Amino acid sequence: MERINPWESFQVKDYTKLMKEFGIEPFGKFSSKLPDAPAFIRRGAVFGHRDFERVYNAMKKKEKFVMLTGLMPSGKFHLGHMMVAEEIVYLQRMGAKVYLIVADIEAYNTRNQRMEDLRKLAIEEYLLNYIALGLKPRNCDFYFQSARSKDADKSNAYYRLAGMVPRRTTFNEMKAIYGELTPGKIVSVFHQVSDILHPQLREFEGPCPVIVPVGVDQDPHIRLTRDIASRMNGNREAEFILPSSFYHKFMPGLKGGKMSSSDPTSYIALTDDPETVKHKIMKHAFSGGANSIEEHRKHGGNPDIDVAYQILLYGLEPDDRKLKKIHDEYRSGSLLTGELKQYAIERVNSFLKKHQERMEKARDRIDRFWKVSSF
Amino acid sequence: MERINPWESFQVKDYTKLMKEFGIEPFGKFSSKLPDAPAFIRRGAVFGHRDFERVYNAMKKKEKFVMLTGLMPSGKFHLGHMMVAEEIVYLQRMGAKVYLIVADIEAYNTRNQRMEDLRKLAIEEYLLNYIALGLKPRNCDFYFQSARSKDADKSNAYYRLAGMVPRRTTFNEMKAIYGELTPGKIVSVFHQVSDILHPQLREFEGPCPVIVPVGVDQDPHIRLTRDIASRMNGNREAEFILPSSFYHKFMPGLKGGKMSSSDPTSYIALTDDPETVKHKIMKHAFSGGANSIEEHRKHGGNPDIDVAYQILLYGLEPDDRKLKKIHDEYRSGSLLTGELKQYAIERVNSFLKKHQERMEKARDRIDRFWKVSSF
Repeated sequence: MERINPWESFQVKDYTKLMKEFGIEPFGKFSSKLPDAPAFIRRGAVFGHRDFERVYNAMKKKEKFVMLTGLMPSGKFHLGHMMVAEEIVYLQRMGAKVYLIVADIEAYNTRNQRMEDLRKLAIEEYLLNYIALGLKPRNCDFYFQSARSKDADKSNAYYRLAGMVPRRTTFNEMKAIYGELTPGKIVSVFHQVSDILHPQLREFEGPCPVIVPVGVDQDPHIRLTRDIASRMNGNREAEFILPSSFYHKFMPGLKGGKMSSSDPTSYIALTDDPETVKHKIMKHAFSGGANSIEEHRKHGGNPDIDVAYQILLYGLEPDDRKLKKIHDEYRSGSLLTGELKQYAIERVNSFLKKHQERMEKARDRIDRFWKVSSF
Repeated sequence: MERINPWESFQVKDYTKLMKEFGIEPFGKFSSKLPDAPAFIRRGAVFGHRDFERVYNAMKKKEKFVMLTGLMPSGKFHLGHMMVAEEIVYLQRMGAKVYLIVADIEAYNTRNQRMEDLRKLAIEEYLLNYIALGLKPRNCDFYFQSARSKDADKSNAYYRLAGMVPRRTTFNEMKAIYGELTPGKIVSVFHQVSDILHPQLREFEGPCPVIVPVGVDQDPHIRLTRDIASRMNGNREAEFILPSSFYHKFMPGLKGGKMSSSDPTSYIALTDDPETVKHKIMKHAFSGGANSIEEHRKHGGNPDIDVAYQILLYGLEPDDRKLKKIHDEYRSGSLLTGELKQYAIERVNSFLKKHQERMEKARDRIDRFWKVSSF
């Protein structure tokens, strides 16, 4: 059995196999039905789900539902992060109450970062980008694991739940899911479980559908959380509706592999300037083209492994017809690697120019999401 | 090395050996210097300490200091619990700000109790008895681990600290101290560490001496907490003064062994009626007397192992001269077991009559210690 461990980077090799092993349903039937969805959803980057029906139904009937996601502040906000941000903004527009969690307790314990740095990064890099990407303060609960709320009843309820979770699992169960454990990892898991379940406490929304969009590497959290919720329900301690999830593929890093905050040549940051973007894509972006122009003209390139193409596919080219044209021309060999890269650079830089202007304006709106009292 | 584990009942056989092994200093020089101390302190039931000097100095100079203790609500409040209550009340009178913790997260995780039952028990059995024994609402912070404060800043600071503790220890360290671990025990430990250290956060008192009176079985918590505080200080994350502790012997259970809430024939509850007390002491109290009256008259009894005598020694006979007389007469054989038991019954019942009247009056004052908003 393939072990998925959220603390170790890895590339998902076979999504279909994974889905079968872990009981994840195909997302296909929703991809086309979701109105005005981000391009990458329409194009199938969201490939699987658990219990998305009840979220979809709540959305259609305009009933209350929660969309919840966590972030681990670690360096620059990049194109990979943007996917999740687009999911958040989209679902908020579709009526979700957004719970946006800075997993600073987890980052502190598992990445040895300083609390102060984590806070600064979360606000200045992440929140600012979310706002620029369209996040609204209404129906948005942005919080830190280390300071849940300005309302004591809410904070107490959240941390109480985190403190009650351990009774409903065992080391063996946790080891089977996460491999080697440390005290810090253990506590991180319990905070995550409380993050996912607490919106349904009466101090928050009460029982309602909750959707957690995640990379497939985060599925262990989802499964454990659903199991723990079932056990608490079974012991009449709670009435949680089992949280739903959907799973997206990851935008590849420039050199292939993962887009990682710790390696600047693997990502394009949303604050990169045009020259940097040009340099990174030209120099680092893994190409699916042939070894020579002659060969490329003759045999064509492979867009499926071409990172410049992937960047367009994941949304930087929102027009499906244009994307199809690029795909076909690259495949046939009439579009060269240099030309494809040049086009991707233009699309990225055109997007970043507008985005960076929006970021500047977003700065004034941070306060509407988060007012620090004691921190 | 003798392992001391707070989750396993045990009898301390050799206090001197224990003290040497764990680096606990003798308390003797303070026993006589503490003004108006409870009888059992004067008589040496508090036998050891760590860094009590700084607490004693703060007391003398009337500077700020904190006295902190936790309770695990489990059945009836009995004479064994009363010792700690007397320590609390005494130190509060000596100027301590009292932090009184209901370890409900710990009890929930390690004893499989229901949260609701824990809360009820903590207030109706424990708090009520503390008040009757003299606890004042002024300079008293009574709280539940599951609902730290009505002030969100304080709650957040307390739980944030609990979430930061795991980074400063390892499984190996915890296993060496506590033996077999479970997720629930792990989390209980981190809450306890935060309980002991958080009074020194700026949201609470700021850095100041903190005294934790404990049974020697709780020393592992103290040592681990002091080590973690040092590490956080070393990383410039905190400025904790290392918490101080003192250690009391345990009042023996009626049948010898431990006074345990789970065995009603081992304890005298502070709500027991006179007939019950009589029955328990007459029938169950382990006697240090000889096997027959004749032998007893000839060889005398052994007060050191006689539970009726121990009850008097631990404070039910506050008059040192009277106690000495009883001791000597019992030792010589002129006082018989039945007579000693009869005297102990009278002392206990006389105390309980007054105490139970005070408990009735205390009921009206619960609100001054704890107002529940969301719970």
